[in-house]
Amino acid sequence: MKSLVGRGTLYGLGLGPGDPDLMSVRADRLLRAARHVAFFRKAGRPGHARQIVSGLLAEGVREHPLEYPVTTEIPFDSPNYKSLLADFYADCCDRLRSLTETGEDVVVLCEGDPFFYGSFMHLYMRLKDSLSIQVVPAITGMSAAWTATGIPMTWGDDVMTVLPGTLPESELAQHMTKSDALVVMKVGRNLPRVRRALAAASRLDAAWLVENASMTEQRVVKLSEAEQQSAPYFSIVLVHGEGRRP
Amino acid sequence: MKSLVGRGTLYGLGLGPGDPDLMSVRADRLLRAARHVAFFRKAGRPGHARQIVSGLLAEGVREHPLEYPVTTEIPFDSPNYKSLLADFYADCCDRLRSLTETGEDVVVLCEGDPFFYGSFMHLYMRLKDSLSIQVVPAITGMSAAWTATGIPMTWGDDVMTVLPGTLPESELAQHMTKSDALVVMKVGRNLPRVRRALAAASRLDAAWLVENASMTEQRVVKLSEAEQQSAPYFSIVLVHGEGRRP
Repeated sequence: MKSLVGRGTLYGLGLGPGDPDLMSVRADRLLRAARHVAFFRKAGRPGHARQIVSGLLAEGVREHPLEYPVTTEIPFDSPNYKSLLADFYADCCDRLRSLTETGEDVVVLCEGDPFFYGSFMHLYMRLKDSLSIQVVPAITGMSAAWTATGIPMTWGDDVMTVLPGTLPESELAQHMTKSDALVVMKVGRNLPRVRRALAAASRLDAAWLVENASMTEQRVVKLSEAEQQSAPYFSIVLVHGEGRRP
Repeated sequence: MKSLVGRGTLYGLGLGPGDPDLMSVRADRLLRAARHVAFFRKAGRPGHARQIVSGLLAEGVREHPLEYPVTTEIPFDSPNYKSLLADFYADCCDRLRSLTETGEDVVVLCEGDPFFYGSFMHLYMRLKDSLSIQVVPAITGMSAAWTATGIPMTWGDDVMTVLPGTLPESELAQHMTKSDALVVMKVGRNLPRVRRALAAASRLDAAWLVENASMTEQRVVKLSEAEQQSAPYFSIVLVHGEGRRP
């Protein structure tokens, strides 16, 4: 590792589920003191992470939007997607490294917990051996989602499985059969497949759909009563555990 | 539901993994303003939740320790254990209900996230239909644990499974074979069985043991290099996912 003397620190700052009141005390303090704030967004959009911190940033803060060259326009498993994203992350890393070389700390805003399905991980893996990086964990979207249902999630010996809704239906159903508590992330356009998998595993009646947990648009509904064919990006499907209790 | 006018609110306040700097802004604010604070502990001990908030409580706060009649002295699946615990929870509920009936708010300190394997859930289920209760989610111990390893936990399509270390070895091994990322909670005295199950699933070499994540006694070690036969109560075993990434 090259000497880091005189260089700034990069912070992977977990913002939590969306309500700024649910950020950690540490994240809140670092954010209010930050002179450089970077965040991912889709080109032409304000960026969700940036919206969460509206009103918390110091005057004169310098903002560094990192704009995805592509999001869902082309398949994520195509060579073209992979190459575009790899170039994008390399470019982001160059920008962040240059900033820290001037001695400045940089805060990267991360929705949810940075190490749990986070975009920041792509930068972290490329920079961790050459930069000083601190990661601030956060409340996950799933914690906010089960809190929103008003029903405890896991008891005693319950097994909990977290499934990306992007998985094939049969694989989803298999996991859904074998686990007590279930969390399905990345629901969005995958909702019909998630619903079919839950039905195949005989878990549909116990499933909840939570949209935008902890945000002003929060909506909690039994999945069997939701007739929609898709859900917002920040949607989570849950089945609560019912394990041992005195 | 009886009228709640003039009654106080019960807060199930998630403290997070142990470092008070990782509490949420909301939890921190509620805690500093609290006039009544309740917390579980083993008789004769200070109580871990209470220790986390040392120095944060207001002057003159009234403390209400809820002391377990029994913890690990008798088997948790014996009728005697169940009946002792059921009586204990009923008594706790009476005390908390009486307090709120005087119009006072009461904050119940919860280690980790209240709805994720939390003791508070036993009170919540008994009181939720007759009291005003607010649950404040928190950073889980597992988030602090994977952050402490310095390795991202889940990527892309990774499946993550959370397993209580109390499960039978064959059941543990089966889940460990089928999931990408693994979290084993409640490790403690179950460490040898957890290690054997990981070996049976060919996951032992990739496993990490994290003791007391985010606390001053934090220790992170590859499980294959830890020769110990047990671990502190706040220990988590992790295997990171290695899914899709550009």
